[in-house]
Amino acid sequence: MPTNVYDPPALDKGTLRIIPIGGLGEIGRNMTYFEINGKILIVDCGVLFPEEHQPGVDLILPDFGPIKDRLDDVVGVMLTHGHEDHIGAVPYLLRLRNDIPLIGSGLTLALVEAKLKEHRIKPYSLTVKEGQKEQLGPFDLEFVAVNHSIPDALAVAIKTEAGTVLATGDFKMDQLPLDGRLTDLREFARLGKEGVDLFLVDSTNADVPGFTPLEASIGPVLDQVIARAPRRVIVASFSSHVHRVQQVLDAAHANGRRVAFLGRSMVRNMTIAADLGYLKVPDGVLVEYKKAKDIPDDKIVYMSTGSQGEPMAVLSRMANMDHAIEVGEGDTVILASSQIPGNENAIYRVIDGLTKLGANVVHKGNAKVHVSGHAAAGELLYCYNIIQPRNVLPVHGEYRHLVANAKLAIDTGVPEENTFLAEDGTVMDMRDGHVEVVGQLDIGFVYVDGSSVGEITDADLKDRRILGEEGFISIIVVVEAQTGKVIVGPEIHAKGFAEDDRVFDSVKPKIEQALADAARNGVRDSHALSQIVRRTVGRWVNTSYRRRPMIVPLVIEA
Amino acid sequence: MPTNVYDPPALDKGTLRIIPIGGLGEIGRNMTYFEINGKILIVDCGVLFPEEHQPGVDLILPDFGPIKDRLDDVVGVMLTHGHEDHIGAVPYLLRLRNDIPLIGSGLTLALVEAKLKEHRIKPYSLTVKEGQKEQLGPFDLEFVAVNHSIPDALAVAIKTEAGTVLATGDFKMDQLPLDGRLTDLREFARLGKEGVDLFLVDSTNADVPGFTPLEASIGPVLDQVIARAPRRVIVASFSSHVHRVQQVLDAAHANGRRVAFLGRSMVRNMTIAADLGYLKVPDGVLVEYKKAKDIPDDKIVYMSTGSQGEPMAVLSRMANMDHAIEVGEGDTVILASSQIPGNENAIYRVIDGLTKLGANVVHKGNAKVHVSGHAAAGELLYCYNIIQPRNVLPVHGEYRHLVANAKLAIDTGVPEENTFLAEDGTVMDMRDGHVEVVGQLDIGFVYVDGSSVGEITDADLKDRRILGEEGFISIIVVVEAQTGKVIVGPEIHAKGFAEDDRVFDSVKPKIEQALADAARNGVRDSHALSQIVRRTVGRWVNTSYRRRPMIVPLVIEA
Repeated sequence: MPTNVYDPPALDKGTLRIIPIGGLGEIGRNMTYFEINGKILIVDCGVLFPEEHQPGVDLILPDFGPIKDRLDDVVGVMLTHGHEDHIGAVPYLLRLRNDIPLIGSGLTLALVEAKLKEHRIKPYSLTVKEGQKEQLGPFDLEFVAVNHSIPDALAVAIKTEAGTVLATGDFKMDQLPLDGRLTDLREFARLGKEGVDLFLVDSTNADVPGFTPLEASIGPVLDQVIARAPRRVIVASFSSHVHRVQQVLDAAHANGRRVAFLGRSMVRNMTIAADLGYLKVPDGVLVEYKKAKDIPDDKIVYMSTGSQGEPMAVLSRMANMDHAIEVGEGDTVILASSQIPGNENAIYRVIDGLTKLGANVVHKGNAKVHVSGHAAAGELLYCYNIIQPRNVLPVHGEYRHLVANAKLAIDTGVPEENTFLAEDGTVMDMRDGHVEVVGQLDIGFVYVDGSSVGEITDADLKDRRILGEEGFISIIVVVEAQTGKVIVGPEIHAKGFAEDDRVFDSVKPKIEQALADAARNGVRDSHALSQIVRRTVGRWVNTSYRRRPMIVPLVIEA
Repeated sequence: MPTNVYDPPALDKGTLRIIPIGGLGEIGRNMTYFEINGKILIVDCGVLFPEEHQPGVDLILPDFGPIKDRLDDVVGVMLTHGHEDHIGAVPYLLRLRNDIPLIGSGLTLALVEAKLKEHRIKPYSLTVKEGQKEQLGPFDLEFVAVNHSIPDALAVAIKTEAGTVLATGDFKMDQLPLDGRLTDLREFARLGKEGVDLFLVDSTNADVPGFTPLEASIGPVLDQVIARAPRRVIVASFSSHVHRVQQVLDAAHANGRRVAFLGRSMVRNMTIAADLGYLKVPDGVLVEYKKAKDIPDDKIVYMSTGSQGEPMAVLSRMANMDHAIEVGEGDTVILASSQIPGNENAIYRVIDGLTKLGANVVHKGNAKVHVSGHAAAGELLYCYNIIQPRNVLPVHGEYRHLVANAKLAIDTGVPEENTFLAEDGTVMDMRDGHVEVVGQLDIGFVYVDGSSVGEITDADLKDRRILGEEGFISIIVVVEAQTGKVIVGPEIHAKGFAEDDRVFDSVKPKIEQALADAARNGVRDSHALSQIVRRTVGRWVNTSYRRRPMIVPLVIEA
């Protein structure tokens, strides 16, 4: 949370206000706010996945606070690409106003629309292409092709009377991309010459020295592994990574194998990608999962989800022998994917489970079967030198990534005072190519759990952490309202506390004593009596067990 | 847990029985059992650190089941080196019989004794050196120097009338170690020539191709970073990594800086290491922490704990501004350590926190400031070729590591049928150089939480996971024993459920209705009534919130 919250001034006509609402200090829930002359443009609207200190949380949304009273002023949401951390919160935004126009490339919008369909929302959308220009109120948008780990990603130049902003979205600069669609440095050069006043740059890999290897370097490895595989091959990757899947299809085809897609999101996304022509399916290579079992083991490749060790996904279920495909001796499993920090233990549990079943498991730890989707430091230096922006705002990254990216900008000659280390909610105003921080909003985490959005507080999560670490002990006492005399109880129950309930026999007399003392002293208030019970049990459990479970006392008056 | 548990036969005289009690299928709680002619030798007795699916657990011990009725037959515990995963469970074993002799090198025993002192146990111990031989009942032991990420590690050859076992302990083969103490391949060669019937080999890095880089390669990097640091330097590493600390001392000294140790275990271990001569402290380089603040910022290095992001350790507290040392602009923090899987998020939170405070954070992700302590595949191949063992038992590793290590053995010519992929509790008998699996014991996890040992069950941990993810809802109803009439309640309380308690107003009538129906049908049993309440609330919460908190119904008869 920001530490120094203060309100920005009213916005003058002709000044552009920029607020990163999400994605700074975190990898996820990317969302940036632009306002000029009373109109608002949003770039991206993604979700963040929870970490282990946010137990039970399904998703974390950007805090829509800064726009929730201004929804009618929003001229559109431009989506740079189709990853969850850039589009995942769109359904939640459209619940607030369902006719906000969405702007994005063909694949991006197809993925958003599939997602919105599940939420029963049909959006107003405008499909755009690189090279195209669109005007949305006071914003003139130009779209530039960028290369990423999903096809059809776009950077966007936002031209306003206050100056030009260029936002990369997520990108890298693969110089031999599978689809030939390069990050368009010639367009970056043109925009740079015309003058980029503020450059918003993907920071994810800014602290990785050198250059991200070619996506195409994975193909020969996949080919070799599949060629040598004696029986079935199961490849797991992200269900939106069309080019990775393309390489699996090609390697399977080259080795005379057919491919079946496994997992709901894999089937859905690849159907979309093939229909729109982003995935080139070699003739006859695909086979429906149901028919795949009739194909000999050495003629099939399963392309599945679950590369992050997600417990409910196909790969975990195979590792737990809870899937129709019974992995065994001679099978080969390839995790052609990254290991997102925090998922390592889950991923290794899956690898060990599959190994134990007899499979040969190939993963990024023992073979070159994954490359990142983000520009490393070397690539970012090219970008800065080609664009020569006046001001730089590193985005998309945890704090260390933003710092590393800022340093790269400064190394290429961007003045330090024009390089902004902001956080979610930092308010920046731009006019005549000059950018200034003018405020800091209080931006919170909005947790989704089940069907509830924004109800969970950090205090609830703290309770969950205590419950999860230590369990709880509940003590119920029914007292006579008039006299404070104990009628029923103390009844003591525990969950997750891990000792036999009989251990509580030794604390019951202490509770009875404490309540009797309280009654004698005229304490009648049930809250005060609860506190007495809590303290008595808390002291006992800490002394006897050196533990601090949650103590839940309930004194009921009858 | 093993799937195919079966009892081994009675052990014949002259046959050696080997049981890996811990450390197979996991990195930690290493413990191996050897028995011949009625006597038992234990090698190592370590702890395992819990993963995120074992919440609230402090430590996991080996299951002492196989020896708990045979304690008087134990002739000794040989400890290969002083890491927690090899010595950490010794206090718990000595609680069962406190005069079991401990055998190990000088540093190993000093570290064990410091630990035992905290448990108020004074052990019977025998300090040994490489080259030394000792007889313990039917076991003739020979100790061989090995190189690891802690000094004074030993392999042990166990000679019996059934044949010779060689156990490496944890090791690597640094060819230019800081202390000049090589893994003694000449001794390995001699033992190999004499005949090693069973070789127990560290598997931790068996799936890492090539060779572990030299520990000495880190020194120049530390030197360079410290030389360029404008203000304070804080280095974090494992508190037992004497050679890493040595290099920090040397680099500090070379740059005219003094060093203060920070963190209880760092101070304790380095005092021991210096006293015993394992740590060579350059004259006048050390300064007490209390006096360090009087030293100019560009003349001090703090050597601290907390490299794994442990919340209570020095480094985390600095990142949270909860430590007397206020990290700021110009300070340099070096994490000269690995990232143990599962700790990444915690480590990166610390890195981000320190970066945000203005520090330059150097870690293994952006500089060569860490090397592993374990032999990689290339080194293991040397070992197998030098020793040419008859039988191999890969130990110390998760299943994928054991498989990778077995493959290396087979590649060097060990027959596949002589290469054993065992798990904790696998019983192997050896006679005349022939090894056979003869049983599989049921080996469980023994959880330590607070002061309780072995009380926590997997069911408790499952409860904790549910509580931690979803919280709980408790419903208390007091009914009249005779009539089943509700006297008090339903009182509903929730923790971690994350909605206002008022939401329960809508389910109360459902509960009352369900209980009234039950009363009408003559249901009086409070357990049956509890189940009715549980089902009613469970169905409501699942439909209304799509969540599954723990439902804790309590029907009390008054």
